Amino acid sequence: MRPSKRAAEDLRPVSLERAVSRHAEGSCLVKFGETHVLCLASVGEGVPPWLKGSGRGWVTAEYGMLPRSTSERMRREAAVGKQGGRTQEIQRLIGRSLRAVTDLQALGEKQITVDCDVIQADGGTRTAAITGAWVALHDALAWMAARSMVRENVLKDQVAAVSCGLYRENAVLDLDYAEDSEAEADANFVMTGRGGVVEVQATAEADPFSQEQFDTLMGMARKGIDELISLQKMTVA
Amino acid sequence: MRPSKRAAEDLRPVSLERAVSRHAEGSCLVKFGETHVLCLASVGEGVPPWLKGSGRGWVTAEYGMLPRSTSERMRREAAVGKQGGRTQEIQRLIGRSLRAVTDLQALGEKQITVDCDVIQADGGTRTAAITGAWVALHDALAWMAARSMVRENVLKDQVAAVSCGLYRENAVLDLDYAEDSEAEADANFVMTGRGGVVEVQATAEADPFSQEQFDTLMGMARKGIDELISLQKMTVA
Amino acid sequence: MRPSKRAAEDLRPVSLERAVSRHAEGSCLVKFGETHVLCLASVGEGVPPWLKGSGRGWVTAEYGMLPRSTSERMRREAAVGKQGGRTQEIQRLIGRSLRAVTDLQALGEKQITVDCDVIQADGGTRTAAITGAWVALHDALAWMAARSMVRENVLKDQVAAVSCGLYRENAVLDLDYAEDSEAEADANFVMTGRGGVVEVQATAEADPFSQEQFDTLMGMARKGIDELISLQKMTVA
Amino acid sequence: MRPSKRAAEDLRPVSLERAVSRHAEGSCLVKFGETHVLCLASVGEGVPPWLKGSGRGWVTAEYGMLPRSTSERMRREAAVGKQGGRTQEIQRLIGRSLRAVTDLQALGEKQITVDCDVIQADGGTRTAAITGAWVALHDALAWMAARSMVRENVLKDQVAAVSCGLYRENAVLDLDYAEDSEAEADANFVMTGRGGVVEVQATAEADPFSQEQFDTLMGMARKGIDELISLQKMTVA
Amino acid sequence: MRPSKRAAEDLRPVSLERAVSRHAEGSCLVKFGETHVLCLASVGEGVPPWLKGSGRGWVTAEYGMLPRSTSERMRREAAVGKQGGRTQEIQRLIGRSLRAVTDLQALGEKQITVDCDVIQADGGTRTAAITGAWVALHDALAWMAARSMVRENVLKDQVAAVSCGLYRENAVLDLDYAEDSEAEADANFVMTGRGGVVEVQATAEADPFSQEQFDTLMGMARKGIDELISLQKMTVA
Amino acid sequence: MRPSKRAAEDLRPVSLERAVSRHAEGSCLVKFGETHVLCLASVGEGVPPWLKGSGRGWVTAEYGMLPRSTSERMRREAAVGKQGGRTQEIQRLIGRSLRAVTDLQALGEKQITVDCDVIQADGGTRTAAITGAWVALHDALAWMAARSMVRENVLKDQVAAVSCGLYRENAVLDLDYAEDSEAEADANFVMTGRGGVVEVQATAEADPFSQEQFDTLMGMARKGIDELISLQKMTVA
Repeated sequence: MRPSKRAAEDLRPVSLERAVSRHAEGSCLVKFGETHVLCLASVGEGVPPWLKGSGRGWVTAEYGMLPRSTSERMRREAAVGKQGGRTQEIQRLIGRSLRAVTDLQALGEKQITVDCDVIQADGGTRTAAITGAWVALHDALAWMAARSMVRENVLKDQVAAVSCGLYRENAVLDLDYAEDSEAEADANFVMTGRGGVVEVQATAEADPFSQEQFDTLMGMARKGIDELISLQKMTVA
Repeated sequence: MRPSKRAAEDLRPVSLERAVSRHAEGSCLVKFGETHVLCLASVGEGVPPWLKGSGRGWVTAEYGMLPRSTSERMRREAAVGKQGGRTQEIQRLIGRSLRAVTDLQALGEKQITVDCDVIQADGGTRTAAITGAWVALHDALAWMAARSMVRENVLKDQVAAVSCGLYRENAVLDLDYAEDSEAEADANFVMTGRGGVVEVQATAEADPFSQEQFDTLMGMARKGIDELISLQKMTVA
Repeated sequence: MRPSKRAAEDLRPVSLERAVSRHAEGSCLVKFGETHVLCLASVGEGVPPWLKGSGRGWVTAEYGMLPRSTSERMRREAAVGKQGGRTQEIQRLIGRSLRAVTDLQALGEKQITVDCDVIQADGGTRTAAITGAWVALHDALAWMAARSMVRENVLKDQVAAVSCGLYRENAVLDLDYAEDSEAEADANFVMTGRGGVVEVQATAEADPFSQEQFDTLMGMARKGIDELISLQKMTVA
Repeated sequence: MRPSKRAAEDLRPVSLERAVSRHAEGSCLVKFGETHVLCLASVGEGVPPWLKGSGRGWVTAEYGMLPRSTSERMRREAAVGKQGGRTQEIQRLIGRSLRAVTDLQALGEKQITVDCDVIQADGGTRTAAITGAWVALHDALAWMAARSMVRENVLKDQVAAVSCGLYRENAVLDLDYAEDSEAEADANFVMTGRGGVVEVQATAEADPFSQEQFDTLMGMARKGIDELISLQKMTVA
Repeated sequence: MRPSKRAAEDLRPVSLERAVSRHAEGSCLVKFGETHVLCLASVGEGVPPWLKGSGRGWVTAEYGMLPRSTSERMRREAAVGKQGGRTQEIQRLIGRSLRAVTDLQALGEKQITVDCDVIQADGGTRTAAITGAWVALHDALAWMAARSMVRENVLKDQVAAVSCGLYRENAVLDLDYAEDSEAEADANFVMTGRGGVVEVQATAEADPFSQEQFDTLMGMARKGIDELISLQKMTVA
Repeated sequence: MRPSKRAAEDLRPVSLERAVSRHAEGSCLVKFGETHVLCLASVGEGVPPWLKGSGRGWVTAEYGMLPRSTSERMRREAAVGKQGGRTQEIQRLIGRSLRAVTDLQALGEKQITVDCDVIQADGGTRTAAITGAWVALHDALAWMAARSMVRENVLKDQVAAVSCGLYRENAVLDLDYAEDSEAEADANFVMTGRGGVVEVQATAEADPFSQEQFDTLMGMARKGIDELISLQKMTVA
């Protein structure tokens, strides 16, 4: 029995709200249950130094958590003076996931930065962020297309993400914090609309898991991501 | 004529929404027009070193802006590696304003931290933050009182804040960004429910202003703050 | 009775000594009683990035305290690795005050940096710094004019500053440390030679103060600043 | 054809040299072809704050690259003033991998830190580091057991790691730098002596990969890790 | 011919002014010609961690330069966010020099910190700092002895320092900036009242120097230091 | 009797191994007994800003210690976030020593960076580093000459270094850690192949030393450096 009473293969209630920012070119407030992440996409002119003159653009992400988005208040990273290792891992993951479905050549020498800020956390912030960031990126590219800054087909596919894990020896989909903090294994999967795999990150928290268990998790994730892909499609339709 | 068509003495539409966080002991989403600040109050055990053993508590604030809360994306302070001078000024101001109406002796050796994070900015973020932070602080103290952690009367008064300025030579209340960026003078006032003055910060942006102009601004602020105090009262009633 | 036996409206003995540096283009050692601040103005070629190509110049200030300028030794900010919030507030204030009386267009694309370093502190370092920094700025501009780098009239007015406060329920001018550490309210005023107001910063340390008390402080400050303006005039005559 | 002429399922020549440090309690110089990593395990008394009084110990890792371990000299992280995101990701991965096979309760309140410093890099530094760090950890625990600081069976299993990837559309094992920089997909697997999975990290560099491709990589990794586990066993026998 | 017209073995005019700070327990403004360094000694209770419980005290120094103490304005180290290598070298040198003549056992578990801040620089700031810091340390120890915090004889000897160098192929004493910036070799010597050597630091700026040249510099330094020792003696008599 | 049984004037066994890196243009693993330093020279295009357009090149060094190169594990400087004062002193010393024998004009606008990383420490790491860095620099310049990037004679001379000290009142050459940690005086000398002096750094650890003692140390160092110069000559022959 999951603490939330969900069935093993159930996602939490997911919502994707677009156009939530007065300023950002694309925006999405994504909720996976009580996990709420604000994704704001900003279109900028420059590209990183290593792309200058290449004709190619860049998509990157930054990730942050409000200090009291969590059950216990965390120290503010800006006050500490640096971003922790976990923050850097997550923002690198989001950026890679978005670039996997973007035609950087078609984008041209521009950079899109998607800020993913966790307003409230209850497990699965990185997977919610990827799923919402895709919507924000989509809308920023539509904004550019409407101004003839890019052609329509910069975005090659959709991308979404979900977590799975072993909780009390059962494979479960989309862990919330209560499950996450006790899970024996924790895995994040990032996949595309056409079913391709972009990222797999699986970690045994205590004892190693078996190949069979891993295969179960990956299959479960695939179904969950299909649902998220459908929701994205309806959202931007 | 103000860009927003408001009369000189008009506040923007103001709203104070309580209990917006699953985790924080007190919370308020404050909106001054298109300026939206999330204020989350966290109750903690420790006090700063200089208060250890004094029997007195502490109230402090931290302030941040989401990178794309503004019209142009700003660099993330956590990525830069330090909080800028403006951030530090504002969070010190919020903290002083809250402490001015708190009985730190009655609080006992506990610390309340109010995180004020700007979700969307359109001028006046610091005054909105103070006004909303008071609500969050109020609710955190009520939470403590309900658990017999403090007596009921830790909060001595209400406190709220508003900006005024000279815009095209006219005194106007509660500047939005369009006004703020062009104003000849910019002033922030923090006052209490009983009419006391907690902070005055007035700055000439270009030419100095006269004593008479300053007095007009201060009078106008007093009226605006009275309205905010009334709204706070209704909010926590 | 004030600890220093001064009457309520008395400044401490103030002195402004020019040309105290072998290297700086303008310099002033300002003393407000036992508060001693060395103000050194440096003329530089560059302007900040946002002014490049604008034809306008910039005046800025940096502020520091020697670690043992105070009664208890403070940690050296260079060793700590960052400037504290108070330091940043003060140097921003000094910079704004100087720019309020400078014709940045007439200065052209050059930058003048005034370093204000507190050699010895006894309260009121920021107001002493502003008052002395104006003299250093004046002399740096005279140095430039003598070399035909600017026209004579870059400086539009004088600017000086003083603190006031409520000490044992009485309004007093130019608080020293003994008063400052006990004052119920603390206010800093920056005004020009022609009587304009550049900055007002007033803070209730404990209980809020009344409008009437504030008006008394502001009136008292005006008189003190008039004296400082006269002394500046004699100094650079 | 691989640049190194290796068959698809061939590891590079691997060596594990123990006892290479005069000072460290356990040490191993691991070579995967031209990738050389020095792994030094240090036994310390303290544990991190969150374990104080728990009776449990901790195993952690730090990772670094000599600035000219790579083809182009990199900036020294100590000079830059922080560890990059990649460094933090890798040292967190090494630490988790080692803890997965350590009985932290049996270790008691002590900490073992394994420093993995890349002397020369040619791809696969993190997988070499994990494989060598296990040997260093083994020897440090043996050192402790010899001094009756722990019982013999703190180490529950072996752990080793290897990379796989899609290079010119073929699955290949243990990528060197020439392959890694061109690979379409890159995956790192960490597994135990008894065949359990500790970590999976797979990333599509350009186009997403299919489930089938992923399964091939994972199968190939399993065989490679089995070889590494055998080599470790001979090394510490 | 030296730029200053001094003979090869001439010191610049040197002055040591005591009791120049209202707050510091010992203080000295030292001038070697146009090089002016303010040395303020602070008595503190704590000792560094490695001395806790040892019964021994510590003497340390910090060094800084005002940004415009030099001909060209330097960046403020507190703003840069760290102390440069030269600063750290110098403050370590001053600290070692002072400890060489202090009986740390007799001092007991207290720490004296001597802040040496360069108000104006014209070459030789580190040697002036050492010479002045000894006076400040002397007076701080006298202050402690007067309060029975230490016995009288904590200070075992005097210590002073001077620079020498090869300027246009001639050995000269106490280089000023004009000489220092052109010198072929630059050496700093720290010696005691009884003629012992505490530190020698000699550096060839361009071509190496010979043993004979080095011996000449060292002999010249000895005479200069003897003069400084005499002046210190008169100062604290 | 020295702990190592060496005679007073004996160096430890010294070895210089060239070409130890697959990537660096020049490399040397230097061993002074149990002190092992890896010196890797990197040829780069840029020069520091102050040399741009001067036609002159630059040689610099960076120094680091692996955290467990020492008897007790030290904190990793990259994790701490800055290089300590000792590290900066040493890398500045190595850089100066190498530049003293390099014709920077003949090098042209290129920079050679020599990374000296201590793999294992047993005293004398800086002198070993200088001695080995010269070999790495030599080989990097030979690499450049072979590609006609420089003429053959950029290197004007050899340079090597050794430590001496007073250990139990006797002058001894090339102190190892056991001696260094107890020595009454510690001196490092850097000299050239033709016998010129590049650097002298001598420090009294406890009581000052006499002129005579210093002269003995310097004479002893000269003999040791002559041996190191001979070994370098054979190494690069």
